[in-house]
Amino acid sequence: MSTFEKRNIISMRDFTKDEILHVLEVAKVMDEEPSKYAHALEGKILATLFFEPSTRTRLSFESAMLRLGGGTMGFADPGSSSSKKGESLSDSIKIVESYADVIAMRHPVEGSARLASEIADIPILNAGDGSNQHPSQTFLDLYTIQQEKGTLEGLKVGFMGDLKYGRTVHSLANALGQFGCELLFVSPKGLEMPSDSLEELARMGGKFKEFENFEEAKGDLDILYVTRIQRERFGDDLDYDKVREGYNISKKFLEGCSPDLRILHPLPRVDELSAEVDETPHALYFRQAANGIPTRMALIALVMGMVS
Amino acid sequence: MSTFEKRNIISMRDFTKDEILHVLEVAKVMDEEPSKYAHALEGKILATLFFEPSTRTRLSFESAMLRLGGGTMGFADPGSSSSKKGESLSDSIKIVESYADVIAMRHPVEGSARLASEIADIPILNAGDGSNQHPSQTFLDLYTIQQEKGTLEGLKVGFMGDLKYGRTVHSLANALGQFGCELLFVSPKGLEMPSDSLEELARMGGKFKEFENFEEAKGDLDILYVTRIQRERFGDDLDYDKVREGYNISKKFLEGCSPDLRILHPLPRVDELSAEVDETPHALYFRQAANGIPTRMALIALVMGMVS
Amino acid sequence: MSTFEKRNIISMRDFTKDEILHVLEVAKVMDEEPSKYAHALEGKILATLFFEPSTRTRLSFESAMLRLGGGTMGFADPGSSSSKKGESLSDSIKIVESYADVIAMRHPVEGSARLASEIADIPILNAGDGSNQHPSQTFLDLYTIQQEKGTLEGLKVGFMGDLKYGRTVHSLANALGQFGCELLFVSPKGLEMPSDSLEELARMGGKFKEFENFEEAKGDLDILYVTRIQRERFGDDLDYDKVREGYNISKKFLEGCSPDLRILHPLPRVDELSAEVDETPHALYFRQAANGIPTRMALIALVMGMVS
Repeated sequence: MSTFEKRNIISMRDFTKDEILHVLEVAKVMDEEPSKYAHALEGKILATLFFEPSTRTRLSFESAMLRLGGGTMGFADPGSSSSKKGESLSDSIKIVESYADVIAMRHPVEGSARLASEIADIPILNAGDGSNQHPSQTFLDLYTIQQEKGTLEGLKVGFMGDLKYGRTVHSLANALGQFGCELLFVSPKGLEMPSDSLEELARMGGKFKEFENFEEAKGDLDILYVTRIQRERFGDDLDYDKVREGYNISKKFLEGCSPDLRILHPLPRVDELSAEVDETPHALYFRQAANGIPTRMALIALVMGMVS
Repeated sequence: MSTFEKRNIISMRDFTKDEILHVLEVAKVMDEEPSKYAHALEGKILATLFFEPSTRTRLSFESAMLRLGGGTMGFADPGSSSSKKGESLSDSIKIVESYADVIAMRHPVEGSARLASEIADIPILNAGDGSNQHPSQTFLDLYTIQQEKGTLEGLKVGFMGDLKYGRTVHSLANALGQFGCELLFVSPKGLEMPSDSLEELARMGGKFKEFENFEEAKGDLDILYVTRIQRERFGDDLDYDKVREGYNISKKFLEGCSPDLRILHPLPRVDELSAEVDETPHALYFRQAANGIPTRMALIALVMGMVS
Repeated sequence: MSTFEKRNIISMRDFTKDEILHVLEVAKVMDEEPSKYAHALEGKILATLFFEPSTRTRLSFESAMLRLGGGTMGFADPGSSSSKKGESLSDSIKIVESYADVIAMRHPVEGSARLASEIADIPILNAGDGSNQHPSQTFLDLYTIQQEKGTLEGLKVGFMGDLKYGRTVHSLANALGQFGCELLFVSPKGLEMPSDSLEELARMGGKFKEFENFEEAKGDLDILYVTRIQRERFGDDLDYDKVREGYNISKKFLEGCSPDLRILHPLPRVDELSAEVDETPHALYFRQAANGIPTRMALIALVMGMVS
């Protein structure tokens, strides 16, 4: 396992199974003994460059940095950044790297985080590049599953909703495939997992099945990962309304599931996941969001060389 | 008096007279010995969630937190928050409470701060919920009057301007009524104090009178609290212009007032309070704004259990 | 030399040659021994009031403050400030000065920083007031030249691009004139240095010449300072396109220049300075941007009385 110091966190593909497990181990330390690292990054600066707004992700990174004793600065919106004046991303990064010690960046264009990492001498944390990668989300999803189930090995994990455009789904499925999980994909017609994702899963010997509705899949799932289905994906509102019905998780909908089933959702949710589920033992999504802090603390501390 | 630790600051109605006086006492300590608490909240995070912009109030809360040694993060504008994606306030709060230790929140909808406080396990500081409550403003108004006059008991306090929609007026008037002040309300027709506010004052034995112009009221006022009259409240620009004339405080306007009269204004002001008044001994409004810092330091420190 | 404590940084005209050199000396200390001042401003607050967006400048000031151990707060955009409600600049400043210890302010109106400094009791750092002054930029330009060339005396410095509206050009040229540099101005017709700037240079005995194209000027330049030519300055797109060709710095363009020529640019650049120049030894503009940190650390530390 190569050291994490000065590494970039761009894509899950850059990490071996052992490296992933190491990040989760450090996240656990941050979770259980946060005060141990309360001054670890004193005097250091995280720049949050959000060329596309994402309040939750930005605040999660900033909170993680503050919990490590560091300072933060940045922008929440492209509207107030120099890129509006026509500046190239490359120039923006070259300048900000002389102001900060680590950058968390979100950008609407796929591959932009990789480009930034090739330019900058300081670590880049990809906070989402278009529909491509959002690795800190995948790390926190994995951490949440591991903490809840005690392992990542051999679980039965369902994915439900828009599996075509769901960036978090693709890299989480890929990672869980590596850990020998059995994957069940439930999606409406036209929003299935992309064929290249499935082929890759097959190549690595991953077990998976596709379904059009949840009833057939629910069996004894350990985890159900839900994503939002956006109206914009449908040409016709009637089609959307028809689909939505079958992808609206309520208490009734969960009848017959294992009592140990845990539901994850990257949030924000709209109506694909009813608020009445919140009080059931199935709801794990707020815990999942909270796990963003120790996970991002781990990532920042690792690339800054404060833990190894 | 119940402890302040973990309490929410939602509405003045939640506080007894003794509790109000206790907050003002702590504010005085913060004012006179700020360095004593310079590290009190080290490692703690204040989230400022402004679903509606209010630069002054936001910066005042952030400054208070920084003066206590804590860190801050948040958003200044709904434009860059997840609520734009249709997320419920309840979800937003559940997530942010896992990122921060205390939340200062402003929201255009009445009752939203109370709702947030019922959801969150960390303290909520209401920084204004629609036309309803803005308790930290009332605390700083009371602190300012108390510091200037040496007491809150038995003063003669005028309120002038838009008394119908002025949120700060309603809760300040109510609080001063409890302290036995005599209240004089001066407002144009149609912008009088709401009848339910007056009835409540009457029920608690408060002394008050209503006036249509300042001349009759000025007598020996100790305090004059001025609020802005907004053009939008009038259907007709002519009506607005006519009213404005009588509600434009200038040096001339103040002739015949007591030399000890002090003027407060929640700011920002436009033309209801002439800049020439700034150099007179009557002007207390910039001092009032400055008092936002020790008052908010007190509120944060109290609910965080750093002082009792 | 008068002390810097409590001084405002509004215009280069407020500083003698000796004072300028002193700021650069302190900047060098901040550059070489940043850790020496890592806690210098603990507990102090910088307010960044950007009534006009400028991400680079704002982040540079915030980074400088964080590097000195202080805290920051402010706004990036007039959209979320009280000035939208019609508040006067004077009122905004009077209030913020009671929240912070030093203010860095950018405003679209010339003279606004001076006005603010006359109102505030805390130091004002002008981060750009309209087309007028941007002194921290001039200090960092001077620091960059001095560090690279070992001196500010007697250099041969070219300025190229829009010299009429280029705020940074005017004050840098003026300062370099004081240090006995020879100045060469290269600009398209209609965008020449303003005649009052040239007259002032002449009065102080400065040496300068004007050119319409770079070929005649390049001789043995030590420094070339490039600024952007904006399309908006031309009534006709054809004129703009014609001009742009001659003002587009590429490797080829630089043939025949001294190998010791160094290029500066206040950034952001668009296409007036080709990315291929970045890898040449001529490129000094990213170093220049990085020098914003020690220079602004020096300015903040000086006006806060932490160094003398």
